Amino acid sequence: VHASPNFTQNALRPGFVEFAFGEPDPTLLPVELIGTVARHAIETYGAGAISYGRPEGPAVLREEIARRVAAREGCVAAANCVMITGGNSQGLDLALTVFTRPGDVVLVESPTYNLALGIMRDRGVETVAVPLDDDGLEVGALEALLSGLRSAGRRVRMLYTIPTFHNPTGVSLALGRRRRLLALAADRDLIVVEDDVYRELAYDGEAPPSLWSLAPEAPVVRLGSFSKSLAPGLRVGWVNARPDLLSRLVAAGVLESGGCVSQYAATVAARVLAEGAYDAHIIGLRRAYASRRDALAAALREHLPSGCHFAVPAGGFFLWLSLPAGLTASRLLPFAERCGVAFAPGVRFSCDGDDRRLRLAFCLYDEAALAEGALRLASAIRTAESGCD
Amino acid sequence: VHASPNFTQNALRPGFVEFAFGEPDPTLLPVELIGTVARHAIETYGAGAISYGRPEGPAVLREEIARRVAAREGCVAAANCVMITGGNSQGLDLALTVFTRPGDVVLVESPTYNLALGIMRDRGVETVAVPLDDDGLEVGALEALLSGLRSAGRRVRMLYTIPTFHNPTGVSLALGRRRRLLALAADRDLIVVEDDVYRELAYDGEAPPSLWSLAPEAPVVRLGSFSKSLAPGLRVGWVNARPDLLSRLVAAGVLESGGCVSQYAATVAARVLAEGAYDAHIIGLRRAYASRRDALAAALREHLPSGCHFAVPAGGFFLWLSLPAGLTASRLLPFAERCGVAFAPGVRFSCDGDDRRLRLAFCLYDEAALAEGALRLASAIRTAESGCD
Repeated sequence: VHASPNFTQNALRPGFVEFAFGEPDPTLLPVELIGTVARHAIETYGAGAISYGRPEGPAVLREEIARRVAAREGCVAAANCVMITGGNSQGLDLALTVFTRPGDVVLVESPTYNLALGIMRDRGVETVAVPLDDDGLEVGALEALLSGLRSAGRRVRMLYTIPTFHNPTGVSLALGRRRRLLALAADRDLIVVEDDVYRELAYDGEAPPSLWSLAPEAPVVRLGSFSKSLAPGLRVGWVNARPDLLSRLVAAGVLESGGCVSQYAATVAARVLAEGAYDAHIIGLRRAYASRRDALAAALREHLPSGCHFAVPAGGFFLWLSLPAGLTASRLLPFAERCGVAFAPGVRFSCDGDDRRLRLAFCLYDEAALAEGALRLASAIRTAESGCD
Repeated sequence: VHASPNFTQNALRPGFVEFAFGEPDPTLLPVELIGTVARHAIETYGAGAISYGRPEGPAVLREEIARRVAAREGCVAAANCVMITGGNSQGLDLALTVFTRPGDVVLVESPTYNLALGIMRDRGVETVAVPLDDDGLEVGALEALLSGLRSAGRRVRMLYTIPTFHNPTGVSLALGRRRRLLALAADRDLIVVEDDVYRELAYDGEAPPSLWSLAPEAPVVRLGSFSKSLAPGLRVGWVNARPDLLSRLVAAGVLESGGCVSQYAATVAARVLAEGAYDAHIIGLRRAYASRRDALAAALREHLPSGCHFAVPAGGFFLWLSLPAGLTASRLLPFAERCGVAFAPGVRFSCDGDDRRLRLAFCLYDEAALAEGALRLASAIRTAESGCD
């Protein structure tokens, strides 16, 4: 079994340590498992697995997800609070389609997942940034912004947030803030799109409770996904939301026409869950990624010059590194590339041009490569500092 | 192997002949083949099959499609004129996202595929109908409408058309009109979205040439699909278009974020083509559906009262039936349902409320059931005519 060329989204440069790409390591993907259950899905569900599916997705996967969510998140979840998506990108696009119209303001964290902004651009909405600190989204600032925008006559219907193991910063929203955000959203009729793609990748105990599980009656659209925890190429995720919100998503024209956007792949994911293979796989992933996180953090502590700072994230794929005063990530990048290491400059994720930080993904390489990358990065920072002051 | 409940888009009522549903007969889906190649895709492409894919889709499938299109449609097709979609519904949605903005006019045939209208509604465009006759879209009327709308200051960037084995009418656009349409589109900078989903289902010789193959340099976005010819639940289709148009589609935000919308299923489709199974499957489908078409046409000729008319379609899934003067399809429907037969009333597909016709899908039942459905329909028409004049 080998990966063919021209397949994958990001091409890795030989000899480089590519810290920029937030994608699962291909060697950690459950290739054999998927090959097996892909056949089981056909054997178990027959023609139903490859027919036009219901817009909300196959009941078998919705029920498996409802069961798992209820067991792990301690909330009452029924299949009628689950619809299947083609992953969180498609889920976000669907939520924008249904709940916003062009010209609306969508509130986002700054920094935030940069590629979500392209999806919003295509839907013609304007994004307005809400600041984030070590406890996640600043809910007080959100409230002030929302009030100001609405007083100015703007239509603000949606917040897009990554409250758990945030991309790019790795922080999680504090529990008190989660509750305040939910109260605010309910009170002000603000739909909170909760991108929850990193939930399963918790390395220090369990992930904090999802916004949706804390208040299933609130206007939360929780986007769950199998992309990081199983296989991104399946393109299967789900939405948890109140039935009234879910029914609006299910009624989208593209689903009425084509049915479930990931029908066959959804039945493959259903077999992974039904055959009991998912939990064992996730335990292995957590162990592998936690070890990588620790290796990167240790190497950075050992090699980085003074003036660099980072917090060790409790989950997810990313470490968010502050550079010494006076050095921007974009200025550092060419020095880093000459040293054979790359990263995502902070400016890509910020809405205000802030470029004092950079994002390091620790998901794609083993411990030795991550340590080598940290060494190269430290060297590049020293060179950039000495050469350009 | 059996189909599980709660799987498929349309629920068939026991004892009914459901002429309303334009979906492949589950018993004609290549269930065993898909189960086998789903495993082969993993064995052949490894982790690449389930990683984030390139926005344009895996090169293996793009190359297989380019080869097949070149061989069957006699035009030069390279992989750089192919991108992979999640089926034609997603492809249309993508084209609307990239090439239109809310408030634009999109020209559509009347009648047209009704569920395409829901996709357009979600994109905030206004649809304006172009009439259709037995030779397909009336290109002269299109030209006049386009001129009038643009003179009135409207932004008209797109025509959506089903020129081959049209849904719901079954007609195909005459060759001379194809050439006139292409010249007009090039001259007036009108993007023609060619929904070509029924191309492989040709029953009387080959399908007419696609608009795209006649003029690959014209502004045509040809939507091809494996939904009718292989399996709808795979959710795999493709676009053929000029590289400059294709590159705009590939740059959509949702693809930049999630990669190919059908990565794993696309590798499954690639194996079907690469292993040589596709042509044999299509030959079988053509034979099966042609026999069903003929059985339905023969039974209708035998049983229908005078005043009913239809042409035998040369391909696709649908027969378009005219009712006796004074009887509308919607008025007929409850009579039909009392006889255990259902259909799609013409008003669903028309933009002007015309309901003198109805659409009968002959894809979902075998010859005996189709004949029984025709008998019931004839009886319902007689009852409706006698009871309601």
